[in-house]
Amino acid sequence: MKYDDTGKLPDITDVRAAGQTLAGEILATPILRCDLLDQQAGREVWVKAECLQHTGSFKYRGARNRILNLTQNERENGVIAYSSGNHAQGVALAAKQEGITCSIIMPNDTPKVKIDGVLASKAQIIFYDRLHEDRQKIATELAAEQNAVLIEPFSGRFIIAGQGTLGLEIAAHPHSDQFEAVVTNAGGGGLTAGIALALEADLPDCDLYTCEPEGFDDHMRSFVSGQRERNTALSGTICDALMTQTPGEMSFAINRGRVRGGLVVSDDEVKAAMRFAFSHLKLVVEPGGAVSLAAALHRKVPGTGPICVIASGGNVDPNLFQSIITAP
Amino acid sequence: MKYDDTGKLPDITDVRAAGQTLAGEILATPILRCDLLDQQAGREVWVKAECLQHTGSFKYRGARNRILNLTQNERENGVIAYSSGNHAQGVALAAKQEGITCSIIMPNDTPKVKIDGVLASKAQIIFYDRLHEDRQKIATELAAEQNAVLIEPFSGRFIIAGQGTLGLEIAAHPHSDQFEAVVTNAGGGGLTAGIALALEADLPDCDLYTCEPEGFDDHMRSFVSGQRERNTALSGTICDALMTQTPGEMSFAINRGRVRGGLVVSDDEVKAAMRFAFSHLKLVVEPGGAVSLAAALHRKVPGTGPICVIASGGNVDPNLFQSIITAP
Repeated sequence: MKYDDTGKLPDITDVRAAGQTLAGEILATPILRCDLLDQQAGREVWVKAECLQHTGSFKYRGARNRILNLTQNERENGVIAYSSGNHAQGVALAAKQEGITCSIIMPNDTPKVKIDGVLASKAQIIFYDRLHEDRQKIATELAAEQNAVLIEPFSGRFIIAGQGTLGLEIAAHPHSDQFEAVVTNAGGGGLTAGIALALEADLPDCDLYTCEPEGFDDHMRSFVSGQRERNTALSGTICDALMTQTPGEMSFAINRGRVRGGLVVSDDEVKAAMRFAFSHLKLVVEPGGAVSLAAALHRKVPGTGPICVIASGGNVDPNLFQSIITAP
Repeated sequence: MKYDDTGKLPDITDVRAAGQTLAGEILATPILRCDLLDQQAGREVWVKAECLQHTGSFKYRGARNRILNLTQNERENGVIAYSSGNHAQGVALAAKQEGITCSIIMPNDTPKVKIDGVLASKAQIIFYDRLHEDRQKIATELAAEQNAVLIEPFSGRFIIAGQGTLGLEIAAHPHSDQFEAVVTNAGGGGLTAGIALALEADLPDCDLYTCEPEGFDDHMRSFVSGQRERNTALSGTICDALMTQTPGEMSFAINRGRVRGGLVVSDDEVKAAMRFAFSHLKLVVEPGGAVSLAAALHRKVPGTGPICVIASGGNVDPNLFQSIITAP
């Protein structure tokens, strides 16, 4: 079996290389502002609308970067990924665009919208039981069997570097020198790591915070203890994209010295943020994509200066979305 | 009473001046693409995501341009607008940002989301009965009484020039030289007129089409007959923003020689487009904002080459939106 790359910790050189590789391949998503958001948050808030990215989440950045860096040999043997949904869609589309065979290992309780997204890109799906089976083991065995490249969801040099291009875009914004902090949504921590590298290089005075849902605050606790903490729960939040058990080893090695701290929001705060995004930003944001916006709206981000939050994904089932936007 | 400006037909010089006035004031909204959209439309389709604009529609462009071009005297006497909703929100916010008094005359069946948008900007609202009262008359009398500037929704040099900045942005897109056509949503035709001027100057080989809902196809019929035709219906479409009775005099004078033709879509096609935008573009698009996307998805736009459609607004009531996204 082959890992997706060497395991070397990515650095800003990798992020800048990803920026070049992905130019014209990804959407440089807009950074929005809204008077009412500033009022509710009590400060200036900018929203990086990454849910508009291809496949509806930031995951396409890393996936596309990984796929475009495969060797000819690797391309012929295909790729495998495990994912709660957004990484799966990113890998599936990026592979399809290059005519590369792709298998995805997904939990059998994945929101239908994410399954449909993968199927639209003609990938093969292998379902597993999230509570009783080990997806990494299934993926590793399958990759060995097929001699395929395993594209892990939040580690690997090309993945983290690809996500980091989002950080480059934030730093390149005309108002970024006023940003006191950037707040990002953390599952495995790959997006956080990429952004951390980009900000350290291009916006060094800006703080970076993670945000997580209650019960899945492994990053917050890990930043406090200095080591990778685990969540005890396996379910219990609407933020399906952020139900990771522990920070990724590679991403945490990058994040621990670079992230200022971790924030936590409740599902109700997430729902209010999704409703706000619908009503005032005209964005469809999924629960896991809305946690940092929720932190801003509920004034949980330290400081009073301008901040940038990331609406990282928009893949939400219509029935859940409708119940949230019509709640009183 | 004073009209909002001289009545001179705007030209490309006015549009470029608006571009300068509005730089940094408006969002240069992104132009999105999506594999699945191309597949369904049978051609390359680019979506100008103008629903992300401040106040959730393109109307803010013209309104902000008008407000920023008021004389000191005019600023002190305040402004008045009549509108089915989006123009009202645009004027109200643009006025509030400059500390200018603002009164809005709105139909009493305006969607609540649009009323709330106006109230959030602290404007005074005067309701009228769309079926029995003449909003223009009410507005004209009030403007005379208060010596206030009447900002009409789809005529006036600064309004049309402001909307035209959207056309400048389309023409400036890296792929615009491949666009065979641009399709825009037409109510009074002010956006169309602005875009027509911009494309004529910066993208002269590109065709421009309007799109309207069934029963409100006054532009389509007017382009055929060469004169301003009227709709007989006053209601009967979910596209509340496009229920204008006839093309504006000023906008039609610009559009009649510059627009290739008019397209028409049904409410069901509009709903399918809104559902598509929710599921795949992660955009909240209102019915009237979705007609040109509907025309693309239902293959009603002549030709087979790349086109650009405009998602011009996103102010839709949650209850209507939820019923549309959860329909089978």
